[in-house]
Amino acid sequence: MDVFQFHNVSYGYTKDKPILRDISFSIREGRKTAIVGANGAGKSTILFHLNGLYATQQGDIFFRNQKVDKKLRKELYQHVGIVFQDPDDQLISLTVSEDIAFGPVQMDVAAEEVQGRVDKYIKLLGIEHLLADNPSELSYGQKKHVTVAGVLAMETDVFILDEPMAFLDPFGKERMASILQLLQEQGKTVIVTTHDMQFVAEWAEDVIVIHQGQCLGSFQPRELFQRPDIMKEANLTLPPIAELMNDIWKGNHGEMPIRIEEAKKWLATYM
Amino acid sequence: MDVFQFHNVSYGYTKDKPILRDISFSIREGRKTAIVGANGAGKSTILFHLNGLYATQQGDIFFRNQKVDKKLRKELYQHVGIVFQDPDDQLISLTVSEDIAFGPVQMDVAAEEVQGRVDKYIKLLGIEHLLADNPSELSYGQKKHVTVAGVLAMETDVFILDEPMAFLDPFGKERMASILQLLQEQGKTVIVTTHDMQFVAEWAEDVIVIHQGQCLGSFQPRELFQRPDIMKEANLTLPPIAELMNDIWKGNHGEMPIRIEEAKKWLATYM
Repeated sequence: MDVFQFHNVSYGYTKDKPILRDISFSIREGRKTAIVGANGAGKSTILFHLNGLYATQQGDIFFRNQKVDKKLRKELYQHVGIVFQDPDDQLISLTVSEDIAFGPVQMDVAAEEVQGRVDKYIKLLGIEHLLADNPSELSYGQKKHVTVAGVLAMETDVFILDEPMAFLDPFGKERMASILQLLQEQGKTVIVTTHDMQFVAEWAEDVIVIHQGQCLGSFQPRELFQRPDIMKEANLTLPPIAELMNDIWKGNHGEMPIRIEEAKKWLATYM
Repeated sequence: MDVFQFHNVSYGYTKDKPILRDISFSIREGRKTAIVGANGAGKSTILFHLNGLYATQQGDIFFRNQKVDKKLRKELYQHVGIVFQDPDDQLISLTVSEDIAFGPVQMDVAAEEVQGRVDKYIKLLGIEHLLADNPSELSYGQKKHVTVAGVLAMETDVFILDEPMAFLDPFGKERMASILQLLQEQGKTVIVTTHDMQFVAEWAEDVIVIHQGQCLGSFQPRELFQRPDIMKEANLTLPPIAELMNDIWKGNHGEMPIRIEEAKKWLATYM
């Protein structure tokens, strides 16, 4: 089943510079979906439609086969949690603890349950020591972890993260990747935008390619990396392992390794 | 020759939370140096000392063997250009054109020469079409390119970039990498902080590892990737190619491939 369908959606901040141009695509429920494309391609604008922050200007969006009208748009945030690119756009309370509680409180979750969720998600993100701190005084990586905990605490079915990996250190990236994995194992739908193509290779099931406000298609990562036409049109580059393999795989049968562990296994047979 | 030496430098915003702790290291002139370490390790604080934005609290910094005192600190910006992480910290003018001209104008460069530099660097960054735009209305990637052009226009000997790759799309990353390469070929000293370990493998000559306000050493990338002790202590992870090679290289002699092209060449002999 599709969790979202875009039917001929257009959107622009000014009339002569459209951001989304008659775009149609769908996102599947319960899957790990990456949305990729160049800076300015329209990825963030798509995300802002998914949780109802933006109303459609032209075309229709369907959420679980129900057309997103004015009423549904205002309820979407209860189903769809979003972590923005810039944590400063999202941190509003005076303590980390209040900030993580903010979402569930807005959703009328009972006070006791809210406290339980705060405890649970600060542990998952490893930020117990920051609980009493003022979010505005934290480092970028710490802020990012607080915003993720806050959105997780809303316990929505759909999680959206706009560039979750940018600015995170390698350890932070690994933690983020394992949280995204965990969410999907719990049956959640997880949608991220990213420029980290190796992360796409390791994590994503579906990859939606956006170019100049249009959709060039939805692919499995391996399939996309073997489509030089699409990669070129969307200004994408291959991640290191696929780039390496594309060169030495020629003439082999079966699935070309694109993940590090796959490549190790395959190469071991030659060494 | 060393362009910078840190001798037992300590720095903290509050007394009980030191950022830099008795740190000593040096950066070589004319080299491509990456500074790596976890979020909060102290990397940005080091950079802010390098161009004189921060004064030392304890210890000494030497710029080309000259101790950075009050007078030299105020002149450092004429030798050392810095591109901040967040372009919004750096864009101050009402048009892109004025913004790129700002640095050279501050340095009393003649008007005609300033115009020549603006023309040169907008071309290099591929942002000719943005010249009359208001920087505050640009996308993140565009803003980043404008700030880089502005710092290049100062034509300093030393260029510092704090996380230049974060949030850039693959095409933007390639352009940034080729600019960094070009600068160094022109004899400039280029210093970047980054979490992108594959970029470190492809680009850096020296890697300075920072952990909790101290320096764990300066390494060549290949050397660092074969030091699991340092990698672990600094919370770093191997980039994809080194991770793959570490597994299959065992028992081989010579230099383990860590760059994509090196790996292609070496693996081709087995296929």
